Amino acid sequence: MQERNIIHFISSLATRENEYLRKGIGDDCAIVRQRAGMDQLFTADMLVENVHFDTSWHDPYLLGRKTFAVNISDVAAMGGMPRFALLSIGLSAKYDKQWIDRFMEGVLSILDEYHCILIGGDTVSAEQLTFSVTMIGDVTENMAVSRSGANPGDSIYVSGVLGSAAAGLHICQTENYSIEDTLRTRWPALLKRHLDPSPRVVLGDLLRKSGYLSAMQDISDGIATDLSHICTASRVRAVIDETALPADNELSAFCSVEKQSQVAFQIRGGEDYELLFVVRNSCEDKLEEFVAGNSDVPIHKIGEIYDGEGVSMLTSSGKEINIEYQGYEHSA
Amino acid sequence: MQERNIIHFISSLATRENEYLRKGIGDDCAIVRQRAGMDQLFTADMLVENVHFDTSWHDPYLLGRKTFAVNISDVAAMGGMPRFALLSIGLSAKYDKQWIDRFMEGVLSILDEYHCILIGGDTVSAEQLTFSVTMIGDVTENMAVSRSGANPGDSIYVSGVLGSAAAGLHICQTENYSIEDTLRTRWPALLKRHLDPSPRVVLGDLLRKSGYLSAMQDISDGIATDLSHICTASRVRAVIDETALPADNELSAFCSVEKQSQVAFQIRGGEDYELLFVVRNSCEDKLEEFVAGNSDVPIHKIGEIYDGEGVSMLTSSGKEINIEYQGYEHSA
Repeated sequence: MQERNIIHFISSLATRENEYLRKGIGDDCAIVRQRAGMDQLFTADMLVENVHFDTSWHDPYLLGRKTFAVNISDVAAMGGMPRFALLSIGLSAKYDKQWIDRFMEGVLSILDEYHCILIGGDTVSAEQLTFSVTMIGDVTENMAVSRSGANPGDSIYVSGVLGSAAAGLHICQTENYSIEDTLRTRWPALLKRHLDPSPRVVLGDLLRKSGYLSAMQDISDGIATDLSHICTASRVRAVIDETALPADNELSAFCSVEKQSQVAFQIRGGEDYELLFVVRNSCEDKLEEFVAGNSDVPIHKIGEIYDGEGVSMLTSSGKEINIEYQGYEHSA
Repeated sequence: MQERNIIHFISSLATRENEYLRKGIGDDCAIVRQRAGMDQLFTADMLVENVHFDTSWHDPYLLGRKTFAVNISDVAAMGGMPRFALLSIGLSAKYDKQWIDRFMEGVLSILDEYHCILIGGDTVSAEQLTFSVTMIGDVTENMAVSRSGANPGDSIYVSGVLGSAAAGLHICQTENYSIEDTLRTRWPALLKRHLDPSPRVVLGDLLRKSGYLSAMQDISDGIATDLSHICTASRVRAVIDETALPADNELSAFCSVEKQSQVAFQIRGGEDYELLFVVRNSCEDKLEEFVAGNSDVPIHKIGEIYDGEGVSMLTSSGKEINIEYQGYEHSA
């Protein structure tokens, strides 16, 4: 498939409009009207075949969704809303038009879900299939929630459950599922979290609006590493409680059957794309009530912020161990 | 070199500030204040080793500059100013920290030159060295110059000279220059245009402000193809005059010595990163006077716009030949 044909194909699919988009794909640049009173959020990720994904088990439609979920999650982690995106594809000859069609259908399905518009990109030849995404979001000015505001006495929370995506990846890496089978195994919740994660945009926006947060980021590399980022940026120490870490029942069952360490998946497993957030001292009850009244997503307090530096975990046997920067590292 | 170290290294270099940047590299997203009365421009390019560049002759410093020149040129072609950029790097193990240091020095040198700030990106492992850039510019609202406004009777112009970059690439591909030698050969102007092109930001801004333009784009794939884009978008036909195409004296000398076709380099050669622009009927004299009074960059009228479709060239022997979409195609 020729580059020019792919670009035409992508622009023919990406015909969405909104009041701020003046010109989408098809000129030297896309044009977007700026808005007074808003701050804009920018994030970029590059995903490389066999480093960040494996098409032998990752269906192209779901991979298209995940490629953007990762970036939408970064916008959610600032309390913002995704608005526009650019996608550059390094296309290997291994993949035909049908594969790219399905990938782009997945891309557009998640962008539509979050009212986000594809406004540009590039398509080139490469040996390894490569996706490079830039996501542009916005948030009311001065209201973005950064990593650097946590203070001693604050409480650490996570949304949803931890470790499911890493267990899903482990299953894909160790068992020979075909693409058709992956969502029909005995561990569908774990596989779905690896193959088709849902960024927490609505919750991130709600948490920001609550006014109770001092820091937030998304869980992409595992909470040990992601919490280290918050501690480094805020110059504080975090202690989390092993017994407080939320897990899906399926993760507990899987770890029991397969003799795997549940806590290792929970603290070191990457790609949960849940929100890790810090609530200001004495605002915990008000925050929990606010979230319960406005969202179905469960949140759990998992630890506290102290003076000092580093991240440690109080284990179920009562020992405090250092877990700083023990996150997921990509294979290559 | 570990990904995390490279990100730290890049953020330690990219410490520039301006009044609109609220937060640069180091959180989930960068944050930029939006501005009323402006339209924002977005463009993205992906460059892949041995498809778009060859490090056996391309010095890393110059390659860092060119990686961004290509994108800055797209912003210039809308009449805008570059403001912010994101860079994702797929890093192959072949390249050490010293190489990346020099590459990043080149990146920052061109960004500083154009008062543009690096605000984000990603660094990952890849087999082929890959650079993915998103460039964000701005322009007074409703004033961006698109490809789609050309009308019959308008005149076609280019800035600078044509074909030098393609001849420079040809020299690199056919002769065995080492990196140290490339700018010291007998064809320094041709090699510089391939290795270190200068985007026409100041001229693009000036042309937009003149108010005389009906369409513009930059010359990245050769004027035959780039003019085809304008004709398709504007639903018009273009005829250019072979004898009017500007060439550097060095290109003429090179083509004469090496028995190469000068006009092939000029119309099919890519990567000149000059501006190709269309001036409204009967505004030619005013435009030429305005540019001569405000810029040192030479401009040349090379043809005219007609009713119809396609791009053709009146050759020096008086024959009209179709040259639509006969541009530079990347090797892979």
